[in-house]
Amino acid sequence: MRTWIMGATALAATMVTGMAEAQELIVEKKVFELPSFTTQSGRTLKQVRVGWESYGTLAPDRSNAVLICHFFSGNSHAAGKYDAADAQPGYWDAIIGPGKAIDTDRYFVIASDTLVNLNTGDPRTTTTGPASIDPDTGKPYGLDFPVVTIRDFVEVQKALVESLGIKRLALVAGPSMGSLQTFEWAASHPEMVAKAMPVIGAAEANAMLIGWLDVWAAPILVDPDWNNGDYYGKAPPLAGLAKALTAVTLQANHEDWAGATFDRRPARAGEEPGKALRNKFQVQSVLDNAGEARARLSDANHFLYLVKANQLFAAGGTSLADGMARIRAPLLYITQPKDLVFTPETVARTVEAAREAGRDITHLTIDGVRGHLDGVMSMKQAEGAIRAFLER
Amino acid sequence: MRTWIMGATALAATMVTGMAEAQELIVEKKVFELPSFTTQSGRTLKQVRVGWESYGTLAPDRSNAVLICHFFSGNSHAAGKYDAADAQPGYWDAIIGPGKAIDTDRYFVIASDTLVNLNTGDPRTTTTGPASIDPDTGKPYGLDFPVVTIRDFVEVQKALVESLGIKRLALVAGPSMGSLQTFEWAASHPEMVAKAMPVIGAAEANAMLIGWLDVWAAPILVDPDWNNGDYYGKAPPLAGLAKALTAVTLQANHEDWAGATFDRRPARAGEEPGKALRNKFQVQSVLDNAGEARARLSDANHFLYLVKANQLFAAGGTSLADGMARIRAPLLYITQPKDLVFTPETVARTVEAAREAGRDITHLTIDGVRGHLDGVMSMKQAEGAIRAFLER
Repeated sequence: MRTWIMGATALAATMVTGMAEAQELIVEKKVFELPSFTTQSGRTLKQVRVGWESYGTLAPDRSNAVLICHFFSGNSHAAGKYDAADAQPGYWDAIIGPGKAIDTDRYFVIASDTLVNLNTGDPRTTTTGPASIDPDTGKPYGLDFPVVTIRDFVEVQKALVESLGIKRLALVAGPSMGSLQTFEWAASHPEMVAKAMPVIGAAEANAMLIGWLDVWAAPILVDPDWNNGDYYGKAPPLAGLAKALTAVTLQANHEDWAGATFDRRPARAGEEPGKALRNKFQVQSVLDNAGEARARLSDANHFLYLVKANQLFAAGGTSLADGMARIRAPLLYITQPKDLVFTPETVARTVEAAREAGRDITHLTIDGVRGHLDGVMSMKQAEGAIRAFLER
Repeated sequence: MRTWIMGATALAATMVTGMAEAQELIVEKKVFELPSFTTQSGRTLKQVRVGWESYGTLAPDRSNAVLICHFFSGNSHAAGKYDAADAQPGYWDAIIGPGKAIDTDRYFVIASDTLVNLNTGDPRTTTTGPASIDPDTGKPYGLDFPVVTIRDFVEVQKALVESLGIKRLALVAGPSMGSLQTFEWAASHPEMVAKAMPVIGAAEANAMLIGWLDVWAAPILVDPDWNNGDYYGKAPPLAGLAKALTAVTLQANHEDWAGATFDRRPARAGEEPGKALRNKFQVQSVLDNAGEARARLSDANHFLYLVKANQLFAAGGTSLADGMARIRAPLLYITQPKDLVFTPETVARTVEAAREAGRDITHLTIDGVRGHLDGVMSMKQAEGAIRAFLER
């Protein structure tokens, strides 16, 4: 089977890489392909491809595998660098690596891109979604791509994991949308998940989050270049996508960070915000520029499909109570009380549902000035708790 | 002077109305016009008009006047009904009226529309802004309208109040953007404000709020019908404005309300949200419909000018510390800890600045499931505190 071969080749490459490196992980992106994949909504897609990375070495008995699931705007670059000169390591590098909390001297850590991943313009992301070519038509799917769910993301990961001969994961973990996948893994495949570490997320998208996700998506829908999803080969809806990404960035942060970083400084000296409607404060300018830069590497339809997948999410498919009833894995649930996306109230409901279902849950809060983003950027705080959880 | 005459006529009408009604306020909308008004940004506008209402009777010594300032999407209808069959009274009717906390048997309560008021399509709102006809050109100002500030709103109110012969206000109060005006009144005209009651707001727009206001505005800017503000006599940017209003509505609420009201119910039976990208949850459908309905009565440029006015806000014009140093009035500051617009952290900074400046501040929190909106909808809770504050 082609997927097996690709997996095995990639695995061999990783083992070599793993041995060559001592304290710094140098990683390479690999591609996993499924000749055929049927979505939860019942559509069969051909040639489903996702990128993936791995860190560490798979044990001969294949018992040391860890799966890391990425956040909304992230990809499979969870740790390490692509080369020694790389300025920025993967997003959870603080807790994944040789001797780190998720110790790649002990664990074989896998991270994969999801379906409908946002970063279609990034050469190191591989995904399948509306921007992909439909093998049957030779054209991008556009809105003909089926609705996909967090469960679909998990099923593709399961195929990847199984292609490596892994029957059970020592840990599934991830921040934000990665935590949704983590809860989904634990609820849908309890026999395959020894431990689960959902970070800055919840086991269900509640009504408020559904509403916020619509606020994020709104500028895309209004952008005339979106054209009901039919813009491939034409001007893409960059303005709408940039504003959408600006909203994500703002809500993923916190006023402690915004206040300390920007206060009420104007974007440019001599262009006081009060002098003209277009003159900006620095916070507006920085967020807009970041949104525009990210939009150029992203796809608007993928953004909308990610929004949909997140809105549809309930671990196990129906409800918080049902999802928790299915889970068997001990949970290390790490959240940030200043999180504006998965708020303390939302987190409390997930904790309560876990306890009502008799789950083995340890709830740890981290702090910082970034709010939601502390679950990506400030994870070193949780190092001791993660080690203790893995040792149990 | 024309403004004096209009004011006096309106006052006489109110006194008659006041006497005719016993326990239910029947109110009428009046219009105040300034032949000339110079904005903080230095532009002189002709024929500046705003609507206003009043409740109760002005004492012969004019010492019993109260001014109520409205919120972002509100207008001067703070209390009472336009006729007995009116389904919905003014927004603060729970605390303004005969025998109520702000007792119209004792106080003469004034409420006025701001400049650039959103509700240009509401026949009971009168405002001056980009949608108004510039007397010099006979055409709508559009983006040629000058940037206006919360201070400008206050200066127009000051002219209205002075046109009634009032030299000092027993109380200035208002929720949300109304609290910004309240802080501005107290900081800019300390000699005219005996007491101030800012509700669900802060004395400064911080960087995070500046960012959120941009998130609200984003869909308008992307809507092709916005056309850089030039849409009068053409199709207005209803789609963008509707999405903008949806964002405001969501952030003014709280997940306790969203969860209890909508949970994860689909908008229509048989159209499961997972079945198609366009199928919605009820929360999405209700918010979208509300946004669309409100957009039809609102103006997109006015929305953008309101966003700008709020972003520019610092009581007294420069900073939180400076604003607080100028205030003399005792403050009854009422907030909601679940407020997602003026968050507990933002509120704490305003309280701290007031205390550092030696201000006489009483901080009261109210609760409810609506978050920010509880400052409009759940004010009866504060009745006792308001009475005690006014009695002092």
